[in-house]
Amino acid sequence: MVESRLVGPVRVVGVGLLGTSIGLGLQGRGIDVIVADASPTNLSIAIDYGAGRAAAAEDDPQLIVVCVPPDVTAEIVARELDAYPNAIVTDVASVKLAPLDALRAHGADVSRYIGSHPLAGRERGGPLSGRADLFIGRPWVVAAHDGISYQQATAIDDLILDLGAILVEMSPEEHDRAVALVSHVPQVVSTLMAQRLTDAPASALNLAGQGLRDAVRVAASDPELWVQILGANAEPVRKILLALRGDLDRFIDALDNPVAPGAGRKIAEEIAAGNTGVARLPGKHGQDRRFASLVVMVDDKPGQLARLFNEIGEVGVNLEDLRLEHSPGAQIGLAEISVLPEAVARLTEELAARGWRIAG
Amino acid sequence: MVESRLVGPVRVVGVGLLGTSIGLGLQGRGIDVIVADASPTNLSIAIDYGAGRAAAAEDDPQLIVVCVPPDVTAEIVARELDAYPNAIVTDVASVKLAPLDALRAHGADVSRYIGSHPLAGRERGGPLSGRADLFIGRPWVVAAHDGISYQQATAIDDLILDLGAILVEMSPEEHDRAVALVSHVPQVVSTLMAQRLTDAPASALNLAGQGLRDAVRVAASDPELWVQILGANAEPVRKILLALRGDLDRFIDALDNPVAPGAGRKIAEEIAAGNTGVARLPGKHGQDRRFASLVVMVDDKPGQLARLFNEIGEVGVNLEDLRLEHSPGAQIGLAEISVLPEAVARLTEELAARGWRIAG
Repeated sequence: MVESRLVGPVRVVGVGLLGTSIGLGLQGRGIDVIVADASPTNLSIAIDYGAGRAAAAEDDPQLIVVCVPPDVTAEIVARELDAYPNAIVTDVASVKLAPLDALRAHGADVSRYIGSHPLAGRERGGPLSGRADLFIGRPWVVAAHDGISYQQATAIDDLILDLGAILVEMSPEEHDRAVALVSHVPQVVSTLMAQRLTDAPASALNLAGQGLRDAVRVAASDPELWVQILGANAEPVRKILLALRGDLDRFIDALDNPVAPGAGRKIAEEIAAGNTGVARLPGKHGQDRRFASLVVMVDDKPGQLARLFNEIGEVGVNLEDLRLEHSPGAQIGLAEISVLPEAVARLTEELAARGWRIAG
Repeated sequence: MVESRLVGPVRVVGVGLLGTSIGLGLQGRGIDVIVADASPTNLSIAIDYGAGRAAAAEDDPQLIVVCVPPDVTAEIVARELDAYPNAIVTDVASVKLAPLDALRAHGADVSRYIGSHPLAGRERGGPLSGRADLFIGRPWVVAAHDGISYQQATAIDDLILDLGAILVEMSPEEHDRAVALVSHVPQVVSTLMAQRLTDAPASALNLAGQGLRDAVRVAASDPELWVQILGANAEPVRKILLALRGDLDRFIDALDNPVAPGAGRKIAEEIAAGNTGVARLPGKHGQDRRFASLVVMVDDKPGQLARLFNEIGEVGVNLEDLRLEHSPGAQIGLAEISVLPEAVARLTEELAARGWRIAG
């Protein structure tokens, strides 16, 4: 059993993806987790799944984590503060100023509340999508305010560190501006791009490649959830969209007469400014270590992948990541195998010696 | 040796990613391929790599494929038409009206020219990024015009089918409008999103997740190339950007007063319209058949994946796609296995019976 910072018990209210993942992660560290949910069905699934136990009358939790939709977060936090007068309460909603303001407006005891927001998620939802390792290496913002003492707030730090996440401190305003930029505006931009597809000819859509698919992926998100998020963070999002509209106007102008003197330079400067923006994003793995990869051609019949992985096992190399590409109509798949950089040359050689075709 | 439709020889001018991939694919079918490039270094790499042989004085190619940057495409096509009076000439530039217009304006013999555009690519460039299977299952547009006879043009169809691509016929105008929507506007939108990151605080960028990364991925593209593409397809791109600006204004208005009556409904309608747009994209595999997937938890040690694939082989189910997820620090990986929908229940049951933990 891994040592934990929290003492527990920890009460988790709402057993969707985040709540269940928190429960699984803390139980794995031996902490007593109590789970609660408005849906008895979801609650029983989460309990069976190992996220925690049902509440009991004598519960006296150290920490309560409210994991419910943004529009009911403040209400449930207030209820939990009342019901458990010894507990510190946090929430995981993706906006941070609105719930704090709402709690203050209703006279809640914010000396025991501090909001937080784990930047972790996946496309699936519900208790069965929960994963004990969901938060490992992911940023988790603590939205500091001056109504809670440092000592009281340490339980939130302990929660974040116990779950393997990276603790980030910000004011609620700073948090909301940051997620407007890195999450809410990308959602809007993706939605706008996807809207352009609604009346496009099917022949055009058949030409779509990975670039368009990536651009519109998050546009498939749930409207109800995004009404809540965008509604609660409208001003920071609107500000960035206004700046983006200015950039868009400039781009449209540059395309107005593309053979005019200087038009090409204008377009090049736009694309180059985008290059600069992308380059500012930190590395994918939150650190600079990268894996090396090789692509192996695999016949599209049962048993071929098993043979490949058997032989990788024989070579003694551990797979770090793997992607199988399979083109329609092709008799061949491509397995892109990521390994530690120092292993790639040996693996390539050994696989080639065993008759595998290495594609690149 | 696979049978080929083309007779050959085929002359490939320009040995970047596309030219080299065409050479490799055709040589694999036993066709005599001649490669040429303005860079002697790239040419010799491509020849060593197996893309074709150097030109000889007596060459009399059946087909010439011009694979050079868009801004010199018309010029090189005209030169090749002159130099090889028996050859049919095509190009692979990502705009199709501009080169045809330029050739006609210069009085070139377009009864032997027909433009084309393979929708295939990868992030790497240069001859060593070439792959014989690059075009398999990818759309390849033939930009039909009335100056070339059906019989002359069959060589282009043969090229496309020999390389395993999917032949798509469009007029040059229709092609340019389609790629404006599915490729050029996504590039501009990605660039605009990325530009917003240039002066953002680093603390905000540290919160970036996959949504933002996907949204800005293509913004890392080469400015020089995009000046050429956007310059040559400015009007169709501009039209779509103007429509997008209208949508953006509407979205900004909806966020102006998010608590006003009806504001929530407006936002929900915007997101829902994006949902509708995304749903119109054909399945990843270019057809509507979808795979079903299950996620299996795999211990992070050599041999575990091999055992999993052995057992999938024993069950007799064919893998259609596969994704291995590996969280940093975690002792467990998740293998997402895509199979035909009718096989997923049986596979889930059989794997569970063999002791595998199915995550969802």
